[in-house]
Amino acid sequence: MNILYDERVDGALPAVDKSALLAELHAALPDLELLHTAEDLKPYECDGLSAYRSVPMLVALPERIEQVQALLRLCHVRKVPVVARGAGTGLSGGALPLEKGILLVMARFNRILEVNPQGRFARVQPGVRNLAISQAAAPHGLYYAPDPSSQIACSIGGNVAENAGGVHCLKYGLTVHNLLKVDILTVEGEHLTLGSDALDSPGFDLLALFTGSEGMLGIVTEVTVKLLPRPQVARVLLASFDSVEKAGRAVADIIAAGIIPGGLEMMDNLSIRAAEDFIHAGYPVDAAAILLCELDGVEADVQDDCERVDGVLRAAGATDVRLACDEAERVRFWAGRKNAFPAVGRISPDYYCMDGTIPRRELPRVLHGIAELSEEFGLRVANVFHAGDGNMHPLILFDANVPGELERAEAIGGRILELCVAVGGSITGEHGVGREKINQMCAQFNSDELTLFHAVKAAFDPDRLLNPGKNIPTLHRCAEFGAMHVHHGQLPFPDLERF
Amino acid sequence: MNILYDERVDGALPAVDKSALLAELHAALPDLELLHTAEDLKPYECDGLSAYRSVPMLVALPERIEQVQALLRLCHVRKVPVVARGAGTGLSGGALPLEKGILLVMARFNRILEVNPQGRFARVQPGVRNLAISQAAAPHGLYYAPDPSSQIACSIGGNVAENAGGVHCLKYGLTVHNLLKVDILTVEGEHLTLGSDALDSPGFDLLALFTGSEGMLGIVTEVTVKLLPRPQVARVLLASFDSVEKAGRAVADIIAAGIIPGGLEMMDNLSIRAAEDFIHAGYPVDAAAILLCELDGVEADVQDDCERVDGVLRAAGATDVRLACDEAERVRFWAGRKNAFPAVGRISPDYYCMDGTIPRRELPRVLHGIAELSEEFGLRVANVFHAGDGNMHPLILFDANVPGELERAEAIGGRILELCVAVGGSITGEHGVGREKINQMCAQFNSDELTLFHAVKAAFDPDRLLNPGKNIPTLHRCAEFGAMHVHHGQLPFPDLERF
Repeated sequence: MNILYDERVDGALPAVDKSALLAELHAALPDLELLHTAEDLKPYECDGLSAYRSVPMLVALPERIEQVQALLRLCHVRKVPVVARGAGTGLSGGALPLEKGILLVMARFNRILEVNPQGRFARVQPGVRNLAISQAAAPHGLYYAPDPSSQIACSIGGNVAENAGGVHCLKYGLTVHNLLKVDILTVEGEHLTLGSDALDSPGFDLLALFTGSEGMLGIVTEVTVKLLPRPQVARVLLASFDSVEKAGRAVADIIAAGIIPGGLEMMDNLSIRAAEDFIHAGYPVDAAAILLCELDGVEADVQDDCERVDGVLRAAGATDVRLACDEAERVRFWAGRKNAFPAVGRISPDYYCMDGTIPRRELPRVLHGIAELSEEFGLRVANVFHAGDGNMHPLILFDANVPGELERAEAIGGRILELCVAVGGSITGEHGVGREKINQMCAQFNSDELTLFHAVKAAFDPDRLLNPGKNIPTLHRCAEFGAMHVHHGQLPFPDLERF
Repeated sequence: MNILYDERVDGALPAVDKSALLAELHAALPDLELLHTAEDLKPYECDGLSAYRSVPMLVALPERIEQVQALLRLCHVRKVPVVARGAGTGLSGGALPLEKGILLVMARFNRILEVNPQGRFARVQPGVRNLAISQAAAPHGLYYAPDPSSQIACSIGGNVAENAGGVHCLKYGLTVHNLLKVDILTVEGEHLTLGSDALDSPGFDLLALFTGSEGMLGIVTEVTVKLLPRPQVARVLLASFDSVEKAGRAVADIIAAGIIPGGLEMMDNLSIRAAEDFIHAGYPVDAAAILLCELDGVEADVQDDCERVDGVLRAAGATDVRLACDEAERVRFWAGRKNAFPAVGRISPDYYCMDGTIPRRELPRVLHGIAELSEEFGLRVANVFHAGDGNMHPLILFDANVPGELERAEAIGGRILELCVAVGGSITGEHGVGREKINQMCAQFNSDELTLFHAVKAAFDPDRLLNPGKNIPTLHRCAEFGAMHVHHGQLPFPDLERF
């Protein structure tokens, strides 16, 4: 499947003499492992979003920062584009290679340099896996909070590049909220430190600017993350509803009651049944929607919150509320949610996972809108998502072998993202823009805003050598796409009043 | 007193024909109130840092955004610098006017546009006072968390410009962590929205970049802040120590025990005695240092934390620990802390308030270092600060009428900030860089980093018309200052090993 790959970026790049470049790299960096045969390059043709594929010209597998630095300097002189990649688990094609560029794989930088329990931080190399940080911190009762579903495999450098989230980011924040400091190499190979060990850093907040910049501003060489004490207890409530809109309203009610759950997830009937068939989590298969609400903290506090949330859920129309009676049931409740994507994969030949964020208060309207769009396009949509954040993950079910379904899947996906923008939301929550959503950026931002993004990019990388064609569309591209050039939340989404 | 004003910025600006500009402004904006006589301009010669004074060429007092927009457009065409100002309470001279520039006073934009309890946000104009937001949200049990000492007077636009903090930012974050969205006008008068109503915003994180940028990237026209539920209860513990180093270590121990206090403040003997003389808070005047630790949340949780903190404090060597027995005593304990600056003002003809941040673990060493520097320079230094954040506010006591004391105060202040940098900290915690600490920026950042700051600035404001001469020093200036051009924490502070 290669439904969405856009070759225009590669097409616009100048031709590179691969053999000459390879020879020059070998001469300058004899120790650097370089892959260059078709066979060796093939495994790197995509990241976690397999719909986009593109074989890189060369793959570099450095082991020392000095090699990265020398490689960047050489590419800068020769004007060769560089795409950085960590574990390659990204879901928006942010690490998609370029046929005329070098793929810089940072996976071998996998050492944990320091775990400091008193300062509550860990200093790690970019290729360290997300979960490995928490494992290293565990003996001190600490952990690293952001927990994307891919946390067993994804690396912290990629988390920084995409500003990764997870089930617990409602309470504990995205990657950007859990960083102290990032060391980077600029496109010219200069070493810079963004942020500091202290609370605040003077000058412009380049650490926040860099986080989520999808490899366009520099290459991460070291990350200092904050560590948090592990909550004493965690409990999960499972609430059933006879409509998705009621479940959506209950989410807003919980937050309005002054409770911040550790996680607050929603699944609709299609996802519930798929997950239950697969995992046997004990979900109510007749419910139109369920909410999973995790409360964590100290015992007395959690107890108190459980009672309050139970009351709020029932007042919001829950037909049933169950508290996981022990740790085994809690883990089972979560297992259903965490395996919902593969579970949906079992009931449909193909699916396309969207990632949009909306203000929580708009959940009922947007869920209703998605249901109507689903009917209109004749494709099933399963909803399973971080409801507390308003971070939606509609899964569009289709069969690429049925003529026209693939195009309809793309079309409804775009419409759903535009609906998110129309209610004041955004086209990404935690997966990033990458290559996948670059057209929707034209709906999200107007030309002044995009121009400013390009000016910021130019401040770091005037020749646009770092990950070109991702994240920020050119104005030319937006014009081709028929961009609306309107402001946040003012997009004239014609159906909005229907929902 | 005008100890530190540097005229080089004004000196380097091109001459402006004031009468011609005034005539042009009157013609283009007949409704805009403009101050231009010496008498009218005088009150605007400084902000909260009265050591720096400079009378602006003109003061504009707009009441409508369209006026600000038209003014910016005209200044952009005529290349006239613009300095924005809110309530003028800033402590680093960030809103210091320019003699060849317009001071744009945003104080009349003081309307609260929306308080949304379900979405937990408030939408306000930039001139709204910090405390007024919490007052408007109070009927819903909500409040706006960042609470600078000046919160009764300072305005939210200025809070955004300086990334203001406060007593509670250890637990609830700085301004940047409590914003959803900021509307700005660029130097060209274009309206942009940074951030969104949703959790995440795609593209580069310009909201974070803008926050703390000290009026150099654009003019704030509207702010959407997050609101939090007010904690059910708050309790304060007061612990006494026979050495500042022990108190410093106790701070790290509390955090390492997994407790995040609502506030964790430290005062040394000089501050304790000054505050007690002034406020009669019930402080132990013989203690070398006290810690005030506020714990907030739900009743059971706070009770539990109070017991744990009490244990940690005693284990760390506290000679006495007292829990405020009622709300009146709690308020009294805080009154002493909150009035510590004016209290110190009563015991010294002049004082100079510093603002640096260090990693918490370095508190004992830096406090020891400040004591030695105090001895070396022959000036008393009172320490009263946000210990939990590592955000120090050494107050340097001096008498400007004694020859040489003023210069010694400046010198020791610079040395203290350099010590902060040397241990891996930063030259500001919450007051910003402004005009005051622009030389220390040369110690904090190397020339590559400063060049990048200038490139980012140029992306927004290539002609450097917005607040020139603040926040980011020119490389030329650093060379004159004798900058060290070294990296974070690698500054060769010669005395570091002494402490």
